[in-house]
Amino acid sequence: MDGAVADADLVLECAPEKLALKQQVFAELERLAPAEAVLASSSSMLKISDIAGALASRRRCLVLHPGNPPTLIRFIEVVPAPFTDAATLARVEDWLAAAGVAALRIGKEVEGFVFNRLQGAVLREAYCLVRDGVADVETIDTIMRDGLGLRWSVIGPFETVDLNTRGGIASHAEKMGPAYRRMGQERGQDDPWTPELVGAVTRQRRERLPLEGWAERVAWRDAELMRLVAARKGAR
Amino acid sequence: MDGAVADADLVLECAPEKLALKQQVFAELERLAPAEAVLASSSSMLKISDIAGALASRRRCLVLHPGNPPTLIRFIEVVPAPFTDAATLARVEDWLAAAGVAALRIGKEVEGFVFNRLQGAVLREAYCLVRDGVADVETIDTIMRDGLGLRWSVIGPFETVDLNTRGGIASHAEKMGPAYRRMGQERGQDDPWTPELVGAVTRQRRERLPLEGWAERVAWRDAELMRLVAARKGAR
Repeated sequence: MDGAVADADLVLECAPEKLALKQQVFAELERLAPAEAVLASSSSMLKISDIAGALASRRRCLVLHPGNPPTLIRFIEVVPAPFTDAATLARVEDWLAAAGVAALRIGKEVEGFVFNRLQGAVLREAYCLVRDGVADVETIDTIMRDGLGLRWSVIGPFETVDLNTRGGIASHAEKMGPAYRRMGQERGQDDPWTPELVGAVTRQRRERLPLEGWAERVAWRDAELMRLVAARKGAR
Repeated sequence: MDGAVADADLVLECAPEKLALKQQVFAELERLAPAEAVLASSSSMLKISDIAGALASRRRCLVLHPGNPPTLIRFIEVVPAPFTDAATLARVEDWLAAAGVAALRIGKEVEGFVFNRLQGAVLREAYCLVRDGVADVETIDTIMRDGLGLRWSVIGPFETVDLNTRGGIASHAEKMGPAYRRMGQERGQDDPWTPELVGAVTRQRRERLPLEGWAERVAWRDAELMRLVAARKGAR
């Protein structure tokens, strides 16, 4: 490790997802890397607060979580701790911009960040559906791949429901929210979509897409999906 | 409605997602359609047991749920009630096969079936992440679109984690299961991935892809993702 990091500006630690191991690697990095090098972890779940919170130079530590395969997923979750300083964030975001990788700043440290929170929600539900005899593994994978995943590769989950309901996401939450709430309650979850929360989400969507542009965006979505479906023909 | 259904072999009801309304439509359909016509609902959430359970000819009733946009999503969730008879299912599945639409039989009636169970799990988590200041709407949509959704449009959630961990999905469940369980518990959910459940999922995956073919399938996934990324360039 000594030779590898002696002249580094940025170190991206990619050890297995084990807290004690990553803590040990970071303690060594602090000793071996230049004093101004940024020390980043590619952790997909663990917080930098837990990995590097005890280090004297923790202000230069943060998580940079790439999706897998990292050569093809062109963004990185940038997850600072409260102790990460602004200069470290600025340097990292400059480097990512230069590399053509989108830096997606996560506002608050939670286990799994956003990528694996969303993935975990799907996996937990998927395992329940197999357990309960609702569908087998291949049926679930097909419904995701040829349905939800196809759509979500063009537009994310909020834009999807925004475009699926005339009147946009506020109308969707009003019409479908109670059913989704019941499904959550069956799993022990009760996080209601309050008027305040739906209002905040709606404002953010309407900034991106005023309702006047809704029909045009629906047509764009359909054209994009057609392109993708055509591109996939014969691929499998 | 009389004229529309008088000679129909198959009626696909597409009224709004309101139970009383769909019940009323089905009562009329039973009276107006030929005695042997299949009466299907395109319901995305409601069970046919609730919609048509009171009808004398309920044996010919079932849910056929297409994803949106139905012209582009080439499968339909086929959701019978316990009272739906085998002849009805056989006729419907023949028609769908002739139309080039995959009939995905759902084994047990649950609200939202599989498509909207998976979608609901993502939406509930996504709303929580906005509420808690972890990420804004556009960050969540980007992480889904350019990361998880891109992957899930090529391989479903089970195959994704099967290919993401050397040793396949059993190894994934062992390494990552505890973290996903903690994330679920934060949302009130505790549905552990028991050895029996992981064993059943693993067997189903290994039937589709023996571990000897794992590395080749990973290379195939990367090639498919490359193709998709290239096809998307300049699309947005």
